[in-house]
Amino acid sequence: MVEYKDMLFKVEGERLSPMKMKVKSGNFEIVIDKLGGEAPSPIEYVLAALAGCINIVGTIVAQKMNINIEDLKVEVEGVFNPEKFMAGTGGRAGYKEIRAKVKVKTDADEETLKKWLEEVEARCPVSDNLANPTPLRVEFEKC
Amino acid sequence: MVEYKDMLFKVEGERLSPMKMKVKSGNFEIVIDKLGGEAPSPIEYVLAALAGCINIVGTIVAQKMNINIEDLKVEVEGVFNPEKFMAGTGGRAGYKEIRAKVKVKTDADEETLKKWLEEVEARCPVSDNLANPTPLRVEFEKC
Repeated sequence: MVEYKDMLFKVEGERLSPMKMKVKSGNFEIVIDKLGGEAPSPIEYVLAALAGCINIVGTIVAQKMNINIEDLKVEVEGVFNPEKFMAGTGGRAGYKEIRAKVKVKTDADEETLKKWLEEVEARCPVSDNLANPTPLRVEFEKC
Repeated sequence: MVEYKDMLFKVEGERLSPMKMKVKSGNFEIVIDKLGGEAPSPIEYVLAALAGCINIVGTIVAQKMNINIEDLKVEVEGVFNPEKFMAGTGGRAGYKEIRAKVKVKTDADEETLKKWLEEVEARCPVSDNLANPTPLRVEFEKC
């Protein structure tokens, strides 16, 4: 039996401008800008992460269930109101609602796919962190 | 007074391989792979999105509070156990805990920075979507 241990992921972001940041994660660099800027915005990365996560977990769960997925596309939509973010007033700062549609090319039947998707949703890390609350601590250090 | 309307964000991901996805968001392409793959993984993008979001909201709030930020770095850590994701057993699928440290180069005093950071956290969309639950619907379509 495999023993799974907690892993610590760490990223480090430095400013390229007051709105633009380069974030290092291991050997990768992810550039993030404001909405309408020169790179995707933070909230676009959130939706993209969910799409990519559904693909990976979808593959893992399909292998376990002996489902052959020939192709898979994911569309993710989020409803967002910028008022809180821009002005500090109004409702919640983040997405009010997120919807994902998984388009699967496969010969598996609908019933099997329903079970597959339930398992994918339950095991998808990004889905979990969006749908459920996560303890989050933000601190500053003056330097 | 500015009227803020709901905005709909949409991204579309297509498979490059069973684990790797190219996600389009407007004119941008974001490539996402499994952990240890050829591009950042979904959960690395989540931490990066938080770092980038703190930078942008940090700038907006600082301008409003007349704080001069000379430079800003953000470190974000997340504690993750792969058991649920890999095996379907164990605790939660996503990060158990996320911590961000904002390193600010400024002449503002500690008390002012404390107020600044509280406001940043309250207005940061990514922070909101991680710390609080968000309605999430995932469906499939066979094609």
